[in-house]
Amino acid sequence: MIRVAINGYGNLGRGAEIALSHTTDMECVAVFTRRDPGSLVTQGAPVAHVSDMADYVGKVDVVLNCGGSASDLGTQGPQVARMFDTVDSFDTHAKIPEHFAALDAAAKEAGTLALISAGWDPGLFSMLRVLGESVLPTGSTATFWGPGVSQGHSDAIRRIDGVADAKQYTVPVEETVQAVKEGRDVELTPRTMHKRVCYVVAEEGADQAEIERQIVTMPNYFADYDTTVNFVSAGELARDHAGIPHGGQVIRAGQTSEGTTSSVTFQLDLGSNPEFTGSVLVAAARAVARKSARGETGAITLFDVSLTDLSPHSAEELRKNYL
Amino acid sequence: MIRVAINGYGNLGRGAEIALSHTTDMECVAVFTRRDPGSLVTQGAPVAHVSDMADYVGKVDVVLNCGGSASDLGTQGPQVARMFDTVDSFDTHAKIPEHFAALDAAAKEAGTLALISAGWDPGLFSMLRVLGESVLPTGSTATFWGPGVSQGHSDAIRRIDGVADAKQYTVPVEETVQAVKEGRDVELTPRTMHKRVCYVVAEEGADQAEIERQIVTMPNYFADYDTTVNFVSAGELARDHAGIPHGGQVIRAGQTSEGTTSSVTFQLDLGSNPEFTGSVLVAAARAVARKSARGETGAITLFDVSLTDLSPHSAEELRKNYL
Repeated sequence: MIRVAINGYGNLGRGAEIALSHTTDMECVAVFTRRDPGSLVTQGAPVAHVSDMADYVGKVDVVLNCGGSASDLGTQGPQVARMFDTVDSFDTHAKIPEHFAALDAAAKEAGTLALISAGWDPGLFSMLRVLGESVLPTGSTATFWGPGVSQGHSDAIRRIDGVADAKQYTVPVEETVQAVKEGRDVELTPRTMHKRVCYVVAEEGADQAEIERQIVTMPNYFADYDTTVNFVSAGELARDHAGIPHGGQVIRAGQTSEGTTSSVTFQLDLGSNPEFTGSVLVAAARAVARKSARGETGAITLFDVSLTDLSPHSAEELRKNYL
Repeated sequence: MIRVAINGYGNLGRGAEIALSHTTDMECVAVFTRRDPGSLVTQGAPVAHVSDMADYVGKVDVVLNCGGSASDLGTQGPQVARMFDTVDSFDTHAKIPEHFAALDAAAKEAGTLALISAGWDPGLFSMLRVLGESVLPTGSTATFWGPGVSQGHSDAIRRIDGVADAKQYTVPVEETVQAVKEGRDVELTPRTMHKRVCYVVAEEGADQAEIERQIVTMPNYFADYDTTVNFVSAGELARDHAGIPHGGQVIRAGQTSEGTTSSVTFQLDLGSNPEFTGSVLVAAARAVARKSARGETGAITLFDVSLTDLSPHSAEELRKNYL
């Protein structure tokens, strides 16, 4: 059994614990938290304070760093990699080279292996972007997100005066998706690729027209998109918009010969974003444990992992049953 | 430059030559044929007789074996692997373990590397079956083929008395595709998964009703499917059904927690089946050349290949631009 620990027990940490329960070759041996360990209710995994992590050396094979990219992973990553093999979901795109370098140095010095930026984007979507372009070098790649909830955009609406609660869905523009698949020349801008659909609970007596105006004109978040604002009651929001679904698609369309287009589409429809992201982290942890056992050290990404290493099955079983 | 040779110049060999022309790090240095080399018109690659292949040792890095699974690849495979690194598209599913063992023995003895069963199914679809199940271990996987032309089914129709020409399209049943994506419990049988649409040119005076009866009742090929037969003129067949498009999709739907379903869909829409298959063989050849340069020998599949090895870009470029 591969012994896995979860570092940080927010939505993603919980999703990872659930994902581990679906495996037969991996077990969750600890959850590390900055909170009072006694206050944490897990699905069954033992809880320890993050300051006691060093006591687990030799008892844990891979630590899943489930903190946030902005605040946690940058500093946590190298610290934990000095003790354990690690997996994280670092997604601050501009800082990936820097994060990789920091983890690579720490892990090489400690003789551990650290896989960064697992999840679905970055993660599975990244893998498919590379696969699509490797197979169809002449063409173009587009990534569409949604239909799904954007926490950042939902939070931006909630900060507007008079808004009690809100949920924002990012929705791909279907005509543009189709044009990309067919390899047609289409302008890809924020507005042509995605639209934004908002469900807003206004405070009593609030000026709904003014709230709507502030949303649709908000720079960066909404002004560059076709945005629809729907006012709903708190009860409707709770009833119809409680989930955190997400997903999206990566499309590579390319010409093999003049006038002959092929396309590769990879689509995710996720009932729960953190549970699916946790599932990817867990599969990545399996690959890390195996590569680490073969003596690999330093930082890697999902680009460096084979499917044989991601799968619980042996190479023989894979050839016989999946090829 | 990675020096590639193509062994066998049918549809697939031609597709591979076109695919090589889209790369900047690979070149087609020879086409090997059993025919008179002077009779072959390539896109530009020099032609040699297959019996002279040994003269190319040291001048070719990877040979793409582009013969058929039934007649060629079983015997060619080990012979060529004794001289060169190789890639093939072996797709006789029941014989894959045997083919793998034969190539593995020949390649290990010769110190070469042989990647078998590249293409899209087996190949990319196989990769996605493993990826989907690795990430969502609790769930089910379904593969749908089409819309696309099946050469085998078209040939079966052409053998019927009174048929001058024919083309058969395999078409997935959309309601079943949707049910699988949503993780609904749906019976997967030949008839629920695919329908068959036939375009038939009857000889003058032929009994069309009898032709249709023979098609729809043909065991294995059509009897287990909902089959539609359309009679068309030779001109219409040439005008509307000249291409060899194909494609399909692999869907993995799984539950992360009770009542929460996520799905992973990988879809191919191929304007030309052989050109796309050739493109996959070429990307696989890049990975083979790199792994071989690192000293790997024996037989492998796409399951054993990382995206870093499939891509022309460096690991740094991939992390910076694709993650």
